[in-house]
Amino acid sequence: PWIAVESDSSDVTKRSDLHRMMDMTAEKLRLVGGSVEMVDVGTQALPNGSSIALPKVVTARFGEDPSKRTVCVYGHVDVQPAKKEDGWATDPYELTDIDGNLYGRGASDNKAPVLAWIHTVEVYKALNIDLPVNVKFIIEGMEETGSNGLDDMIVAQKDSFFSDVDYIIISDCVWLSRRPALTYGTRGNCYFFAKVEGPKKDLHSGVYGGTVMEPMTDLIGILDKLISPSGKILIPGVREAVAHLSDEEWKMYQDIEFDLESYKSEIGLSQLMYSNKVDLLAHRWRHPTVSIHGIEGAFSSPGTKTVIPAKVIAKFSIRQVPNMDPAVVEKQVTDYLHSVFAKRKSPNKLNVTMVIGAKPWLADPKHPLYEAGKAAVKRVFAVEPDLIREGGTIPIARTFQDVTGKSIIMLPIGGFDDGLHSQNEKISRYNYMEGTKLFIAYLHEVSQIKKY
Amino acid sequence: PWIAVESDSSDVTKRSDLHRMMDMTAEKLRLVGGSVEMVDVGTQALPNGSSIALPKVVTARFGEDPSKRTVCVYGHVDVQPAKKEDGWATDPYELTDIDGNLYGRGASDNKAPVLAWIHTVEVYKALNIDLPVNVKFIIEGMEETGSNGLDDMIVAQKDSFFSDVDYIIISDCVWLSRRPALTYGTRGNCYFFAKVEGPKKDLHSGVYGGTVMEPMTDLIGILDKLISPSGKILIPGVREAVAHLSDEEWKMYQDIEFDLESYKSEIGLSQLMYSNKVDLLAHRWRHPTVSIHGIEGAFSSPGTKTVIPAKVIAKFSIRQVPNMDPAVVEKQVTDYLHSVFAKRKSPNKLNVTMVIGAKPWLADPKHPLYEAGKAAVKRVFAVEPDLIREGGTIPIARTFQDVTGKSIIMLPIGGFDDGLHSQNEKISRYNYMEGTKLFIAYLHEVSQIKKY
Repeated sequence: PWIAVESDSSDVTKRSDLHRMMDMTAEKLRLVGGSVEMVDVGTQALPNGSSIALPKVVTARFGEDPSKRTVCVYGHVDVQPAKKEDGWATDPYELTDIDGNLYGRGASDNKAPVLAWIHTVEVYKALNIDLPVNVKFIIEGMEETGSNGLDDMIVAQKDSFFSDVDYIIISDCVWLSRRPALTYGTRGNCYFFAKVEGPKKDLHSGVYGGTVMEPMTDLIGILDKLISPSGKILIPGVREAVAHLSDEEWKMYQDIEFDLESYKSEIGLSQLMYSNKVDLLAHRWRHPTVSIHGIEGAFSSPGTKTVIPAKVIAKFSIRQVPNMDPAVVEKQVTDYLHSVFAKRKSPNKLNVTMVIGAKPWLADPKHPLYEAGKAAVKRVFAVEPDLIREGGTIPIARTFQDVTGKSIIMLPIGGFDDGLHSQNEKISRYNYMEGTKLFIAYLHEVSQIKKY
Repeated sequence: PWIAVESDSSDVTKRSDLHRMMDMTAEKLRLVGGSVEMVDVGTQALPNGSSIALPKVVTARFGEDPSKRTVCVYGHVDVQPAKKEDGWATDPYELTDIDGNLYGRGASDNKAPVLAWIHTVEVYKALNIDLPVNVKFIIEGMEETGSNGLDDMIVAQKDSFFSDVDYIIISDCVWLSRRPALTYGTRGNCYFFAKVEGPKKDLHSGVYGGTVMEPMTDLIGILDKLISPSGKILIPGVREAVAHLSDEEWKMYQDIEFDLESYKSEIGLSQLMYSNKVDLLAHRWRHPTVSIHGIEGAFSSPGTKTVIPAKVIAKFSIRQVPNMDPAVVEKQVTDYLHSVFAKRKSPNKLNVTMVIGAKPWLADPKHPLYEAGKAAVKRVFAVEPDLIREGGTIPIARTFQDVTGKSIIMLPIGGFDDGLHSQNEKISRYNYMEGTKLFIAYLHEVSQIKKY
């Protein structure tokens, strides 16, 4: 029934579904015995000047024994947009079981993991076993659009809701292969707009072409100087800041289960940027990269149009890793693009702004939280977990760390091929069931962590 | 009343207005004594697979005296899209007279010139003067979207409607300054799609960034090699083909009334590609140029999206001038881009296609048709006309020339600041009235041309 709720946080016309999803989450947590609150986190401004209510954040508490550890499970129940026409084999909003896989939007990201956590406390209750740790939940409904409202709430409740929390657990990511994994780092992201403005209005390319320096040509010219064909970032200073790959890391990467061939076939490319596992993983997780996402203001429809666009805005981003600093990167990129642009001697105007500056997050995979994770994985799956990172950004992890100062673990249960944000998202019954067992085991292992 | 008809040929929901516009045109021509036909030119296929009727082409004949010359006036009564919200000061579909300017979509392009031609034959009739030449009309309703149906009709009627035509007159362009002008050339246009295809679907730039060679980076890399910041086309062979600027041309350009400062302020730029009149006019009219219009398939909306687009299609065009040949240009561009792309050693696939290959058109400004034009301008305006070209493409001129073999003149009456295809399109009462007088005088002058 959770999949059937179209809790798409990016679509304001679906906001009532999203509110209903938060109500259902709260109700579920109450049913299994939690003390639940729905926290009003204010309103969201819309482009048209009006505003609508944000979905409430659901918090819950199970147990308040001061002699026990307290963990806080973070999750979200909003989803990315999905339409059957996008290429889904099944209705994205009807949970469909095919050969042991449960298909539906939000199945893996992040509804099933949230349910698995709720079932974890339910299991302890059903078996009449005391929870080995106190468990809190913080479940939001705006993750897919930037956790609007949650950052402020974390700051506001730093000394109340979070005061007795020892550890924060996030299960909003996936394994790298069929082997279970613990995630100890994510990349951050600096997202830039580079705007080149020229004529006061769009011009006909026949009538004016050849007489003006075109903003689009200027923009292409500077974008081409960001990264080399072989993936080398050309912005001075950016690569120099990056922490070096240690021998220990190299060894860790070497041991990780990761098949280059299946990665290639998954994305449909005959050749990757690097042809060995360590280089590839390193550039996925712990090196920065530049991606050019697109250009606003130019002609982007099918067909032909003979236009010289007057104002064009490139969107590109640079993934952040230790020891990069977004404020420094902002200056490096801005200075560099202006210097490249100056050489063109164009009368057009360049404006570079950084609109997102999200830092990377990195945990110590030898921290007791991770040792507990390794023990739980070994207990349930009888293997050692891979210690992995995420190439993407989970800004909330960094916010939790910076605001609350608590230790964080990312404990994924989703499969590497779950298709998050893509068509035909799914979670397998196996991952869902064994994942729940993992969570059950993990609470036990955490309860064993000594205060130090 | 003609302006009030929203005869936007690009918008199929306005097709009934367009049919009405053709009926009104036919009726008007009948009223002033023409033998009118409405020629069915078939249907237009729509993207959804259905088809709708094309607007009929209106032909008319005034006089059949075999001892007289026969001219054929070409015009169109369809218009570009226009909405008040685009920034119009007045309702674009309500003719509004402000300080002697008649504002409205289609006012200058091309409804007023068509009416001026109809009024020209009406004046002869009202004054009971025999037309000095036989006059035919061919008025279409699909010019703004590529004259769908007309090319075939011209071929079909080459030996019927066109058999007794001596000259074709097109008044679908404007003066260069306040001085009347005759237009003796237009640039052609080769329009290209360059598609780079990589992964089988769009990828998350966090999760995959750094591990794949991104199609967008490849595309930017090859686009940046098309033209230098100073406007030099970098595709081998393209510039070499261009006819050299002769001393005579240089002298002609030197004499043309054209103010660089007002051109700059019209388009809102502090600096143009060339700072002297001759170079600027030459690069507007008789040199090729490259314009990059935009990219399809990448992220082009406001806001941010962290996507690695899987398939991106750049749209760019190269204006054609004598002695370029579109078939040769197609090969030059395709070979060059593939060679530039090959150096990148990318696993992505590049596909280059030329979707439009329109040749330039050039007349001899010393031809008797132009001498007649100079005489008519002198009679009405008491000045010598500027002899100018158009930077844009009027493919129908080239079609008339290639299919019928007739001589063609472009005889504009619109003002340089009429804002064709733009907001606040207008024609001044002065240009409209004096333009009608010019047409009246022109018919007289053409009747004086000796057979040679």
